[in-house]
Amino acid sequence: MGIPQHVSIVEVGARDGLQNEKSIVTVDDKIAFINLLSETGLKRIEAGSFVSPKWVPQMADSGNVFTGINKANAIVYSALTPNVKGLDAAIEAGVTEVAVFGAASESFSKKNINCSIDESLQKFEPVIEKAHAHNMRVRGYVSCVMGCPYEGEIAPKAVSKVSKQLLDMGCYEISLGDTIGTGTPVATQRLLDSVLTVLSVDDVAVHFHDTYGQALVNIYAALQYGVASIDSAVAGLGGCPYAKGASGNVATEDVLYMLNGMGIETNIDMQKLLVATDFISKVINKSPASKVANALLTS
Amino acid sequence: MGIPQHVSIVEVGARDGLQNEKSIVTVDDKIAFINLLSETGLKRIEAGSFVSPKWVPQMADSGNVFTGINKANAIVYSALTPNVKGLDAAIEAGVTEVAVFGAASESFSKKNINCSIDESLQKFEPVIEKAHAHNMRVRGYVSCVMGCPYEGEIAPKAVSKVSKQLLDMGCYEISLGDTIGTGTPVATQRLLDSVLTVLSVDDVAVHFHDTYGQALVNIYAALQYGVASIDSAVAGLGGCPYAKGASGNVATEDVLYMLNGMGIETNIDMQKLLVATDFISKVINKSPASKVANALLTS
Repeated sequence: MGIPQHVSIVEVGARDGLQNEKSIVTVDDKIAFINLLSETGLKRIEAGSFVSPKWVPQMADSGNVFTGINKANAIVYSALTPNVKGLDAAIEAGVTEVAVFGAASESFSKKNINCSIDESLQKFEPVIEKAHAHNMRVRGYVSCVMGCPYEGEIAPKAVSKVSKQLLDMGCYEISLGDTIGTGTPVATQRLLDSVLTVLSVDDVAVHFHDTYGQALVNIYAALQYGVASIDSAVAGLGGCPYAKGASGNVATEDVLYMLNGMGIETNIDMQKLLVATDFISKVINKSPASKVANALLTS
Repeated sequence: MGIPQHVSIVEVGARDGLQNEKSIVTVDDKIAFINLLSETGLKRIEAGSFVSPKWVPQMADSGNVFTGINKANAIVYSALTPNVKGLDAAIEAGVTEVAVFGAASESFSKKNINCSIDESLQKFEPVIEKAHAHNMRVRGYVSCVMGCPYEGEIAPKAVSKVSKQLLDMGCYEISLGDTIGTGTPVATQRLLDSVLTVLSVDDVAVHFHDTYGQALVNIYAALQYGVASIDSAVAGLGGCPYAKGASGNVATEDVLYMLNGMGIETNIDMQKLLVATDFISKVINKSPASKVANALLTS
């Protein structure tokens, strides 16, 4: 397993990021933000979520966001769809790729989506089936892969089990989420040692939150296993609801800086990325949680 | 080369950190800060610098700091001494370990200490000699090991050359400083591939600044080479004078979080470390540049 020569970044700032920011961002600002992201060279942009507005008010306008953005042909704009109702709304809005959101922790599954892991998978079955009938690819998220706010440590075997189930159900890629950011490199290695017994490395993405500053080093540990798909959010968007004052997703700029320094291709333009960072940071009136942005953006 | 089981952290917040902060910290606050650091389990604390107050006003009171702190027997409190005059002042203040500060970049050497690399080494000779005559150990710093604000990239060979010279002159350990924080893991590997041809891994420490968020991942790359001595500063103290708005040293808390998660021993107590972080952050009226501190300290 060598370090990959090319890495595909999935920009999750407009969904996982903004969903966890305090500020409510208008449809127009979301559209402007995503349009700026589309200029950067990013090929995969998670742009919204079709979930109950009762649970996630920040994403209530995802339909309008999807119909409002300038869609570039080479870019996949994806959305979270936890159920068929959400999928139908996504289809109506012209979404071409969706994602379902499972967990490796029973307690987190129950508290977050109000059902057991098995029940969640049953709910995803018709979503994946209908998405495929519409020629849409489905991505599978697994949360709490290195720790749970309710259960503490999570056994790598629990992660590989649900990851394999999601893959077998038809997900084309499994994004392993360190939801609370407690993972460190050795835990990342243990996780991948387990997951890669049942999944090919090409089926795996990593989605690490930077709550304790460990995301980039964990990504590097994953790169050393050959993982070549990385989720991140410009400006490190997204707070961590489980740790007061903590940061959210790993910042795309910081990931890109590392990959550039390592000679790994992404086709993403740092300067254009910083334009998107600057824009959304001003919209939510918050300094970027990105060291690169703070060093390079003149304030 | 395996990951070390034990790592020695050199806490540089009171010197390299505070030297680059805008706030001038009083002697009493420095003493209180260092006394808090002494409670954490840290065994090596860089506590000041005996340099011209004209150049570094923040460190003008290092003599009073050294005579004022509660010195624990098990802890080494060190100071920077660029010349014999500084060494004499350090000896008078009861300092038992000193450090000299060289560079791997000619331009940086000239702009920072106003002489060539060779001239700087000549100046250090009598310092090291006299320090040894007083049974003091001398540490050698090499700055700009992965980049220079004036020259850009620095050849690893230039680093290994000056590192070997400092070791041969009697320094017991060489601290490799990524002064501007532009290093990434591959550069770290190239650096160590070169330096470890002339130095034993036990003679090497890493001193990485987090300007672009790469310090922790570079430390991990160094750990994979067996490096077991790491410089860091609580709260990530110290701005980067070469990048506006950028952060300084890698935060000790974030390093400790990673090492703890990897099962590497340091004997440092995270909660006590956070007490020191909280104290100095309030003194300089600045949020810690440490993800761990921001997640765990209630504001």
